[in-house]
Amino acid sequence: MNPIQKVAIVGGTHGNELTGAYLVKKFEQFPHLVQRSSFNTLTLLGNPRAFKVNRRYTEKDLNRCFLSQDLQNPLLLSYEEQRAKDIDALLRPKNQPPVDIIIDLHSTTANMGLTLILSNNHPFNLQWAAYLTALNPQVKVFRWANPAHDAPFLRSLCPLGGAIEVGAIAQGVLQAELFQQTEALIQSLLDYFEAYNQGGIRQPSPTLTLYQGTETVDYPRRGGEIAAMIHPQLQNRDYEPLHPGDPMFLTFEGKTIVYEGTSTVYPVFINEAAYYEKGIALCLTARQEVTLSEIIS
Amino acid sequence: MNPIQKVAIVGGTHGNELTGAYLVKKFEQFPHLVQRSSFNTLTLLGNPRAFKVNRRYTEKDLNRCFLSQDLQNPLLLSYEEQRAKDIDALLRPKNQPPVDIIIDLHSTTANMGLTLILSNNHPFNLQWAAYLTALNPQVKVFRWANPAHDAPFLRSLCPLGGAIEVGAIAQGVLQAELFQQTEALIQSLLDYFEAYNQGGIRQPSPTLTLYQGTETVDYPRRGGEIAAMIHPQLQNRDYEPLHPGDPMFLTFEGKTIVYEGTSTVYPVFINEAAYYEKGIALCLTARQEVTLSEIIS
Repeated sequence: MNPIQKVAIVGGTHGNELTGAYLVKKFEQFPHLVQRSSFNTLTLLGNPRAFKVNRRYTEKDLNRCFLSQDLQNPLLLSYEEQRAKDIDALLRPKNQPPVDIIIDLHSTTANMGLTLILSNNHPFNLQWAAYLTALNPQVKVFRWANPAHDAPFLRSLCPLGGAIEVGAIAQGVLQAELFQQTEALIQSLLDYFEAYNQGGIRQPSPTLTLYQGTETVDYPRRGGEIAAMIHPQLQNRDYEPLHPGDPMFLTFEGKTIVYEGTSTVYPVFINEAAYYEKGIALCLTARQEVTLSEIIS
Repeated sequence: MNPIQKVAIVGGTHGNELTGAYLVKKFEQFPHLVQRSSFNTLTLLGNPRAFKVNRRYTEKDLNRCFLSQDLQNPLLLSYEEQRAKDIDALLRPKNQPPVDIIIDLHSTTANMGLTLILSNNHPFNLQWAAYLTALNPQVKVFRWANPAHDAPFLRSLCPLGGAIEVGAIAQGVLQAELFQQTEALIQSLLDYFEAYNQGGIRQPSPTLTLYQGTETVDYPRRGGEIAAMIHPQLQNRDYEPLHPGDPMFLTFEGKTIVYEGTSTVYPVFINEAAYYEKGIALCLTARQEVTLSEIIS
């Protein structure tokens, strides 16, 4: 792998996820915070129009607008579809080298703490993730189910990088502690890239615990309408084991609905506000130990 | 005071406060849950258009549209302004008796637990509030600052009643535990009205602890933009004492801003998402012991 030359930090890809948006604003005001001697860092407010009106998006979820075919489709003209094309042009300019790494900052109403969502299983992604989890064992690493070669996420513009997903935090809210923890995570990550460029890093651990998404589960519905809530025993229990027979939902009438799978899973994105409309009540993951190569560079 | 004949329970006055909206939907499906032998209960989804798009409101905050002069102003034509007039006509019909009591269901991202917001200090309001706090000492009672004779809130259509404000809960989210606690509170309240109608209730306590709003505090701003967050030591500490010199805000650069008042106050609505746009970071209250008449009816 070549040295890292250009890193992009994006916040406010969803306009009501304020942690990332205000971190980017801070970095714009104090650029030295994210600069390092061996590479350049570009910062970007992903969806300024949605940020202004404090909504996830105005016409279409920006973080679902980055499929190659959509970026090339001149008929897609909504604000977010056009913004995706602009961001593509910024991060992968025609006559200059593209950014090497994208870090996209998100937040969730699920109790996911500090989560790294890897864009893919590229060895370098596994390595920086392993480094950050060794620094702070509270940090978790997650990958979405069915990693398509071409994903619709902003971070998919680039093979290296991923999202930092922090929670639980309500939409439209800043929480000082999570703000500072996210900032510290970004600092450690940039330091890691710098150390990598400057000549090799001994990985702190030969393995990484990865929560690999396997499937999403929707709310029980009746005629399209939600008929049950996340069960109190599951609420806020992201990354904890869910066994077959464990309570999963509670109907409005008070009836418990259990998890009917055949194996223990580790749910994440439990009760994420923005996923009600996407038909996702939670995302099931399998917990895996992934082996890394011990030394890189 | 005459017997109570008609009670209105309203939910979803803010379309993204799902607890109340789904409680009203449940009551519409099972009306016997809110009926009592001595009075009728009417249930109402306050802002169906905002609920459908999962936003607080679509054009104007419905819960600020109920000033008498606005309800009578034929030039106010936004969706919410018209909806306010429709709700007024439903709850105070021209040729029938108006509702006697309005209970408006709200939720907040602030950690306010179960809060009763009284429409005013009418003795009957103080009495049902005292009854509910005696049943469940976790229940708090709050009143806004400067109670104008004519307030813009939906609940101000009627002298008796108030809002039930529950949190912390993110907008656009259902939380089973708070849903059930809110429902239980409504049941106790309806039982209280029934007992009142059926002949007198001995008040459980001669006094009531009331958190009386005194002023609101905005975020520190720089050129209009937020420059600081709620301090981690204040976050989630609704109803706890804030002393002069205690940390109140933390700037993005990490500088603490303290509370500079001269007396101890009890903040509420700390970091409520919907109040960023209203210029309210928290609301200060004075804790008061209010004396009630011991027996009513």
